[in-house]
Amino acid sequence: MSDESLVSTENSALHQARLAYKPPLPPSLQNIHKLTATMDNSDDLHGGLPPGDQHTLKMLFPHVYGQELMALTKTSEDHQMNPLKIGVVLSGGQAPGGHNVIAGLYDSLMKVHHDSELIGFIKGPGGIVDNKYIRITEELIDSYRNTGGFDMIGSGRTKIESLKQFQAVKAAMEVHDLDGLVVIGGDDSNTNAAMLAEYFKQENLKTKCVGVPKTIDGDLSNKYVEMSFGYDTCCKVYTNEIGNIARDGRSAAKCWFFLKMMGRSASHITLECALQSKPNVALISEEIRRDGQTLQQVVDELADVICARSHVGRDYGVVLIPEGLIEFIGEFNDLISELNRTLATKLSQTVLGVLKKAEQKIDYIESTLSAKTLKSYTVLPLEIKMQLILDRDPHGNVIVSAIETEKLIGEMVGIELERRTKEGTYKGKYNPQYHFCGYQGRAAFPSNFDAKYCYALGHVATVLVAQNLNGYLSCVRNLAKPVDEWQPYGVPLTGLMNIEERHGKPKAVIKKALVELEGEKFKLFEKHRDAWKIQDAYRYAGPIQYSGAAELTEESNFHVRCKL
Amino acid sequence: MSDESLVSTENSALHQARLAYKPPLPPSLQNIHKLTATMDNSDDLHGGLPPGDQHTLKMLFPHVYGQELMALTKTSEDHQMNPLKIGVVLSGGQAPGGHNVIAGLYDSLMKVHHDSELIGFIKGPGGIVDNKYIRITEELIDSYRNTGGFDMIGSGRTKIESLKQFQAVKAAMEVHDLDGLVVIGGDDSNTNAAMLAEYFKQENLKTKCVGVPKTIDGDLSNKYVEMSFGYDTCCKVYTNEIGNIARDGRSAAKCWFFLKMMGRSASHITLECALQSKPNVALISEEIRRDGQTLQQVVDELADVICARSHVGRDYGVVLIPEGLIEFIGEFNDLISELNRTLATKLSQTVLGVLKKAEQKIDYIESTLSAKTLKSYTVLPLEIKMQLILDRDPHGNVIVSAIETEKLIGEMVGIELERRTKEGTYKGKYNPQYHFCGYQGRAAFPSNFDAKYCYALGHVATVLVAQNLNGYLSCVRNLAKPVDEWQPYGVPLTGLMNIEERHGKPKAVIKKALVELEGEKFKLFEKHRDAWKIQDAYRYAGPIQYSGAAELTEESNFHVRCKL
Repeated sequence: MSDESLVSTENSALHQARLAYKPPLPPSLQNIHKLTATMDNSDDLHGGLPPGDQHTLKMLFPHVYGQELMALTKTSEDHQMNPLKIGVVLSGGQAPGGHNVIAGLYDSLMKVHHDSELIGFIKGPGGIVDNKYIRITEELIDSYRNTGGFDMIGSGRTKIESLKQFQAVKAAMEVHDLDGLVVIGGDDSNTNAAMLAEYFKQENLKTKCVGVPKTIDGDLSNKYVEMSFGYDTCCKVYTNEIGNIARDGRSAAKCWFFLKMMGRSASHITLECALQSKPNVALISEEIRRDGQTLQQVVDELADVICARSHVGRDYGVVLIPEGLIEFIGEFNDLISELNRTLATKLSQTVLGVLKKAEQKIDYIESTLSAKTLKSYTVLPLEIKMQLILDRDPHGNVIVSAIETEKLIGEMVGIELERRTKEGTYKGKYNPQYHFCGYQGRAAFPSNFDAKYCYALGHVATVLVAQNLNGYLSCVRNLAKPVDEWQPYGVPLTGLMNIEERHGKPKAVIKKALVELEGEKFKLFEKHRDAWKIQDAYRYAGPIQYSGAAELTEESNFHVRCKL
Repeated sequence: MSDESLVSTENSALHQARLAYKPPLPPSLQNIHKLTATMDNSDDLHGGLPPGDQHTLKMLFPHVYGQELMALTKTSEDHQMNPLKIGVVLSGGQAPGGHNVIAGLYDSLMKVHHDSELIGFIKGPGGIVDNKYIRITEELIDSYRNTGGFDMIGSGRTKIESLKQFQAVKAAMEVHDLDGLVVIGGDDSNTNAAMLAEYFKQENLKTKCVGVPKTIDGDLSNKYVEMSFGYDTCCKVYTNEIGNIARDGRSAAKCWFFLKMMGRSASHITLECALQSKPNVALISEEIRRDGQTLQQVVDELADVICARSHVGRDYGVVLIPEGLIEFIGEFNDLISELNRTLATKLSQTVLGVLKKAEQKIDYIESTLSAKTLKSYTVLPLEIKMQLILDRDPHGNVIVSAIETEKLIGEMVGIELERRTKEGTYKGKYNPQYHFCGYQGRAAFPSNFDAKYCYALGHVATVLVAQNLNGYLSCVRNLAKPVDEWQPYGVPLTGLMNIEERHGKPKAVIKKALVELEGEKFKLFEKHRDAWKIQDAYRYAGPIQYSGAAELTEESNFHVRCKL
């Protein structure tokens, strides 16, 4: 045999095919020279906020607050366009499609004028501050089209906050003589983009700052932004895994699978994957908070389902658990707060330093907790008790994200089932298995949807810069429809903001969207979920397909379908 | 929007497409009436064994030992064929393609004669003993073609060992008047199939027992059986995940990913996935045993790679770890043996029962260990120490499979890096992440390769029964070539056996194939792996594709390519 395919520079066949894929564009974006931005007055962007918030926003963003929604529409005549120079940066966690935003930027810039230039700041916003960048060439772009990951220019989590940082950004804009800075990021990064836009204007820079909505979490979503990119692919990657695991579970008929679903605080990924895969149970954090459920109540309800299935001979099943769940459980939050307070005291630090054994530390911590909190702590499995006091961040706080929520739930269910076994109300066998639908999704090859969506978003970002729009978010609407009907928009970033109190100070932030319990998508889930509990209604989506019939390659997700 | 697709009976688009897929057959299997089995004397099947083993096998299998390899070849004339009745059973863990073996059996039986019948014994070999079965109809088959899982008839792990069980099987064969019993399973199940074949012959039953080589682990593989089914799909599912995680790692540039690879004892899956994905490190258990490495040596070598990558600014990477690794590390095996002996004593059980705290139990256990073993135990992370003494099977033994090997390695690497940090030889940041390439692979939709291979295996099994071959394994050879060149074979099961001592008694078993360190496949890995350590040579395979160009859908794995 030949070992050609082991030569490190050779791509897989699918990789090669994806590099060659040409994402179709909506008609309006096909000829950039015929585009114009027109105000869309159909909606009062700023009217939804309380007058106090509007006032604060106006104070914080004197130059960019109050801008209007802009639709990008076709005109009949061609505009003469000058070369543009744009800098682009990736901010935060990976999301499938990031490279296609950059490809969209590049291709559209070349259409604007072949002397246009694109530079990429390296490893996130810190790269702007330090002026670390590369020039993005045709050759580079061609080796990243339709691929996953952010490795073309890297990403980072630096927040641009201090005056020194702002000044460094200004210097970078000036040294490169940039017409635009495109920030590809989530809610925090786009909040930061709005601040840069305001600063650029205040400093009379020619640079326009434009954001692009990225995040697999799906929480950058509102009336104007149908969805962030990456979410579609990630949900499809996880849905395939859920189906495979459900089918395995049903075949062997002896394991309960607890799947932790990536997606930070909100439960969007869990909800979408549930609609696509129909597991026996999917916990939705927002609903658990609304109903004021305790951890034990959540566990009891799961145990009820397990008992009911066992009763009909099904000692197996699949449960989806959003990774942010425990932050939505009141008593658990109280416990974390109290632990943080206790762990921060000098006394505790000294005592914990002296005690050698983990369990001695646990005993000590239990002796410090209030009666109510102690009750929440003592019921936890040993492993979780240890995680809560041993894994602490540099400030001494509990690292909530490090808690293996799926194990916490699965082990507590085990304790409850043991109780029921002794009581005689449960006779089944309980064999929990754990899985994390996590990192394997964030850098996957984008679905055709995300490939097209991101490519369009890149084009829109260029047009927004060309149209001198500063402090705007690149948007494409009507996403549930075929590409031909997609509508490009520019949404003023400050129109997406509200005021939240952070450390006692008012702060302008883009609101993280949680699952709307009155929304159509949740209602759909609510209507059907009971039918999935006892029956095996699993839907086996299979892996993402890139060629073949449209129903295989272009299926739209429930998130955009529910926006119709 | 409509919520049609939520109706529980509706399949996904890919599911529908897979149901409609028609796996092509090798020409020889296209007309069953023209097939004949002819002896293939090109090879002395039994010659490789020591004469003592040959003698023992002859004693254990007086009726079926010594049968010849049979090639199934085309003749010019059509044979008249009578209806056949076959029973089929799935045994052991899920492997993609199982349903297609059954579809192959069904379709070939219908070609033999439209009055043929197929029944499926339910939930594994226990279903034969208890005579629990369903009749397999066209309608049932049509709803499972090319799907993953074993849920059509279920699977189980019952071993048929006692005389009573053998008699119950005989009764089931007689009551159904079966011409054939097809056992779809791994090495153990096919060893069991050989025993049934011998028993059927001894009892003068007309039923022929035929095996089909199934296992994702890849350890049912030898000179005659190129590979077991399911392995191809599973490796492709995991390879996609590895690529995604590697790309995520490279993009964020801050995590080391330790991936535990399913596959029982042997490292076949790890080796195949490594060749397909080119991670920074892939541990091969067989090599570690050959070199007599200690756990600390394995950890040190990993730490060396991490330090070397950190030195060139790469504080990230991917390590593949076969799930059976620790069984191949001598000192760890000694530790387990000693723990099992200690934990089995009355004294230990009493003491451990009295001690409430996990760490008190650990202290006690440490006081009982020999100096050498104690050294291996004390270096382990707390969590693993606890797993080793708290999780025990009903016989009181350590449950080796429950040990989270990826965490064991990752945490020990952390301890070593901390040491090097203090020493000043390592300045990087170490952030380990863990992932299990496990259950999400075993019940995936079979790749086109596995779909075709299994469909052909089902046909071959029918022909073996029709040709009155008893105690044979259904085989297809030349798998790296296009389907047109595949060659169907029947391999006598006893020809795959050797004698192993189990509990002091000689036992005939099909030898589990380990990774051959002198074989071409491992050599290929050995030749290239150093280049993958420091450079990012990751290959991004992407998810399994089912339609489109052949290079996307029909890529053969290294396992069969190395058999060419």
